[in-house]
Amino acid sequence: MKINTWFGTLEIDSTGEILESLFLSKDIRELALHSLSLRDSKSDLPPEGFDLKNAAIKSGFVNSPAAYYSLLHEVTLEAAKLQVSGALTPDQRIIQAVEALDDINETTNALSERLSEWYGGYFPESGLGGEDLALFIVKYGSRENVGSEDPLYSKARNSMGAKLEPADEILLIGFAENVCSLYERRRQIEAYIENSMELVAPNLKLIAGPMLGARLISLAGSLKKLAEFPSSTIQVIGASKALFKHLRARAPSPKHGIIYSHPLINTAPWWVRGKVARAVASKLSLAARIDFYSGEIEPSIMEKLEAKVLQIRTLNPRPPQKRQESGAKPKKRRRK
Amino acid sequence: MKINTWFGTLEIDSTGEILESLFLSKDIRELALHSLSLRDSKSDLPPEGFDLKNAAIKSGFVNSPAAYYSLLHEVTLEAAKLQVSGALTPDQRIIQAVEALDDINETTNALSERLSEWYGGYFPESGLGGEDLALFIVKYGSRENVGSEDPLYSKARNSMGAKLEPADEILLIGFAENVCSLYERRRQIEAYIENSMELVAPNLKLIAGPMLGARLISLAGSLKKLAEFPSSTIQVIGASKALFKHLRARAPSPKHGIIYSHPLINTAPWWVRGKVARAVASKLSLAARIDFYSGEIEPSIMEKLEAKVLQIRTLNPRPPQKRQESGAKPKKRRRK
Repeated sequence: MKINTWFGTLEIDSTGEILESLFLSKDIRELALHSLSLRDSKSDLPPEGFDLKNAAIKSGFVNSPAAYYSLLHEVTLEAAKLQVSGALTPDQRIIQAVEALDDINETTNALSERLSEWYGGYFPESGLGGEDLALFIVKYGSRENVGSEDPLYSKARNSMGAKLEPADEILLIGFAENVCSLYERRRQIEAYIENSMELVAPNLKLIAGPMLGARLISLAGSLKKLAEFPSSTIQVIGASKALFKHLRARAPSPKHGIIYSHPLINTAPWWVRGKVARAVASKLSLAARIDFYSGEIEPSIMEKLEAKVLQIRTLNPRPPQKRQESGAKPKKRRRK
Repeated sequence: MKINTWFGTLEIDSTGEILESLFLSKDIRELALHSLSLRDSKSDLPPEGFDLKNAAIKSGFVNSPAAYYSLLHEVTLEAAKLQVSGALTPDQRIIQAVEALDDINETTNALSERLSEWYGGYFPESGLGGEDLALFIVKYGSRENVGSEDPLYSKARNSMGAKLEPADEILLIGFAENVCSLYERRRQIEAYIENSMELVAPNLKLIAGPMLGARLISLAGSLKKLAEFPSSTIQVIGASKALFKHLRARAPSPKHGIIYSHPLINTAPWWVRGKVARAVASKLSLAARIDFYSGEIEPSIMEKLEAKVLQIRTLNPRPPQKRQESGAKPKKRRRK
């Protein structure tokens, strides 16, 4: 009978006597990898009650119980390390990218504003901002270098801005280069998120768009958690402040969290926005579940969502009339 | 009698009759520059009550009052533009650089932290941070690429971190490049400030160091304002919150604002820190005044300051004894 152990393969008879043995080398990493593969395969395991330590000593793999335990300790430690160091799941990697993107966005905006203020003293009439301004500065530096083919030529020539000294020009161009490369990085990370979403959550991407979908996964913590959320939770993800105010006090429940950025919701008239948000959230939840449990693409969800939203908007063409008769409180009191 | 006007030179007799006239061309820019030079020189101005408009028409420079006023309007506008568009003063440029540096510092720290968190999942044992980590990532990307000559080789080989996928590696390297170039920019701006301070405020630079000196100018608004501040104001610049609390309530007056970062102050024992801060502030004020009004370098100020601080520390070798007898309130009440 052949058995696999963490230190090699043994051939034993029915009484447990070792007939033949084939050891692995004493390389910790190799032994750890081998023991992990055993854990997965579970074939030819030693019979219950079989004393591995004695077998290892008898067969001559180690020469004492102390040596056996010391080696076993090192191997299990290495195996544990190998286990945690598997690749991160794709949704965790998306979350990291979303967080990095948020930081990049914030810093890019801050540096862009600073650049605008700084260069504003030298060419206040440019009318440029953000990436356009940064690219302009990288290209020309001082407004004196603007070529006659540039649409800003005459503005640059007649500008009321101060003269830009060479030392400051170098500084400004360098600063603008930083801003440009941050805008570059932003696009790169966005493209990464878009690609990853296509692989990890194609249905969610279809319904929510790549960035909103990635943000939902990021706020939920993982695709699994998002798939487990009821759609009413998805509807208010990112509106926790308003939600807790609602739960604590008499504030109305929030109609939408970050899903407000969904085009179907933010283009809807205010009086159906809650209904539309509920419809969108329910399909987002469905999409996340399909992505997590099956992974197949179902384009029909989007069609159904669009039909549903159309129906909501057709049934509610006008803002609701405020009922002042019946049970409602008089207007004045409600305003309080 | 010769008079200079904004449109040219006229030779008039005592009755105001024009004998001869020499016009400038009708180029707006040239006329504007000429009128600005007149404002500075103030020689041969027309006598009081002399009607320039009539003279311009009579001598044939323009043919109607409307033409005269329209041209004058354009010229004064251009002159105003030229006036504001002179180069900024060097201290204003230092202030801009200080503000840009503050923004760069803040963003660099934020992105550095994000990088550390992000890469931490892949190589938690690196023990690197800030620029070192960013340079490491740019150099190697995944920890698998760490060469055996690197001191982190064995840590990288035995790391418990996750495996870094190629797509994430590209993203991380790019992000790290941004961080590196922001650190680069920081050094460039700091060097600029150091050079400019040497030119603009050499004495202040000597006493305060370039960065503290530049920050003082920045918070004061200009070197002129800093030179006009009493030294007690310089002592608490940057501690406005504590100062207003002192003025409003019973809080103790702040002993130092941003000058706390001065090595003479932050290495002084706490019981003489207020005295030392006052001495430093008085020399900073003196330095700023010399820089603004004369510009000559006076190395003796620093010597005097060091002697003064030594004297303070020699006279106060031990922390003061708390007097509990006499007029002071009992300890318990003071703690309230």
